[in-house]
Amino acid sequence: MSDVSSSHLVSPHARSSRRTFLRAATTSLAASFGTTVLTGCQPSRAAAGHARVSPLLSPSTGGVILFQGDSITDVGRDRDVAYANHGKALGGGYPALIAGALLSTGAPWRIYNRGVSGNKVPELQTRWDQDTLALTPDILSILVGVNDYWQTRTRNYPGTVTDYETGLTALVTATRTAFPRVHIVLLEPFVAPFGVVDVSWFPAFDERRAVTARVAMATASTYVPLQAVFDRLGHRTTPQDWFRDGVHPTLLGHAMIAEQWRLATGL
Amino acid sequence: MSDVSSSHLVSPHARSSRRTFLRAATTSLAASFGTTVLTGCQPSRAAAGHARVSPLLSPSTGGVILFQGDSITDVGRDRDVAYANHGKALGGGYPALIAGALLSTGAPWRIYNRGVSGNKVPELQTRWDQDTLALTPDILSILVGVNDYWQTRTRNYPGTVTDYETGLTALVTATRTAFPRVHIVLLEPFVAPFGVVDVSWFPAFDERRAVTARVAMATASTYVPLQAVFDRLGHRTTPQDWFRDGVHPTLLGHAMIAEQWRLATGL
Repeated sequence: MSDVSSSHLVSPHARSSRRTFLRAATTSLAASFGTTVLTGCQPSRAAAGHARVSPLLSPSTGGVILFQGDSITDVGRDRDVAYANHGKALGGGYPALIAGALLSTGAPWRIYNRGVSGNKVPELQTRWDQDTLALTPDILSILVGVNDYWQTRTRNYPGTVTDYETGLTALVTATRTAFPRVHIVLLEPFVAPFGVVDVSWFPAFDERRAVTARVAMATASTYVPLQAVFDRLGHRTTPQDWFRDGVHPTLLGHAMIAEQWRLATGL
Repeated sequence: MSDVSSSHLVSPHARSSRRTFLRAATTSLAASFGTTVLTGCQPSRAAAGHARVSPLLSPSTGGVILFQGDSITDVGRDRDVAYANHGKALGGGYPALIAGALLSTGAPWRIYNRGVSGNKVPELQTRWDQDTLALTPDILSILVGVNDYWQTRTRNYPGTVTDYETGLTALVTATRTAFPRVHIVLLEPFVAPFGVVDVSWFPAFDERRAVTARVAMATASTYVPLQAVFDRLGHRTTPQDWFRDGVHPTLLGHAMIAEQWRLATGL
């Protein structure tokens, strides 16, 4: 996997740099005014207070959407099925929820789930050629990071925060090198402090969360913030409504992730 | 339940009549021009070709949403939990998916699922006071009808198409009488011709589908068409991606229902 490991040295192309700037500017404006940044007509969902960047994607376009990640993406998917849009192959989590919504419009999406339970960035790297690049994604969605920290506690995994940042950046830039027009979506890792998670996870886990945001900004990827939303929802009812065990979301939690993904991408 | 049975004689109030007219006019316009009817700024989801009526509801308003129906709404919900927004009490289907999306905005929704497997209109009538009116819904969503036909085949249920129409109308008008400002959402019953469903279901089952559309129009309710969407999706991949057995949707199917519900309501 030396190709992937070294490819983070490739500079993002001009379009990506421009997008980085536009996104940074939009986010900054939203932060300054404490409000939603509106660019022309807005969907009703934006009225709920979500910042939105320019609509780079359209629900009617179609194309290949690939979901990559760990158990939170996997959710018991049928791995014997390789083709797109298969009910069981999409698993029992947010990828299936996004797929069901997007496919219902009739647009020609081809949607794959290649999440694998227990995966960290190094495992994604090992299978990136076969499970990501070979599927020629138009939109690549990645949710990874909880195991990159968790397994330092349970399996003596020696990976550092810097390893996580370097590895995640390499995955993104390798994909952009192969497909310059690919749209990359990075989801923020998240936990709730119960079940398998306790206070001793912090601030070490938070450092991985910060990495994802930083890599998204640095690589002009769409960033899907999730921890603050889970925190707010957990306080309003209980974290158990949204998580099974502090790491894995309930169906309600997966529906929230799907909604945040759609708000961030405009799909 | 004589109150409920007789209440379908109550005339819809003036606001509902006006909404009926506006909805009929909008639908007619959409049909005439073969296009989406746009009323001001539109959400990106509308760009995919879905007709939308005027935005009567806002995602930020909040209020009580109640999902009523049969097993397709129930989906293994925890019936020991009575309070709103509880992960397990919302079940494993479209109500939880809609709830996860709407709650994630932070708006003060209180969402309940009171679907019961095997229910027909008569069973809904029996528990309407306790399971619907007592919850004072601002939005009442009803998906019922497949058992009203299915059990004529399996349990010698003697209900006719007219019984279904009269009973469903009574449920809606009883609710409007109790809560004049309630927003009612009627979902079209649907099946796929495999598993427990075969060609001998038609056209008898289709007559129940037509009833739901007619009752929605007659009672100024929001109508969520589903059969045509399932048909189209089933042809594109396979019906098994969307249904477990011809009656009960997969998670992918539930995600589609949630999306159609949100498109129809604007939430």
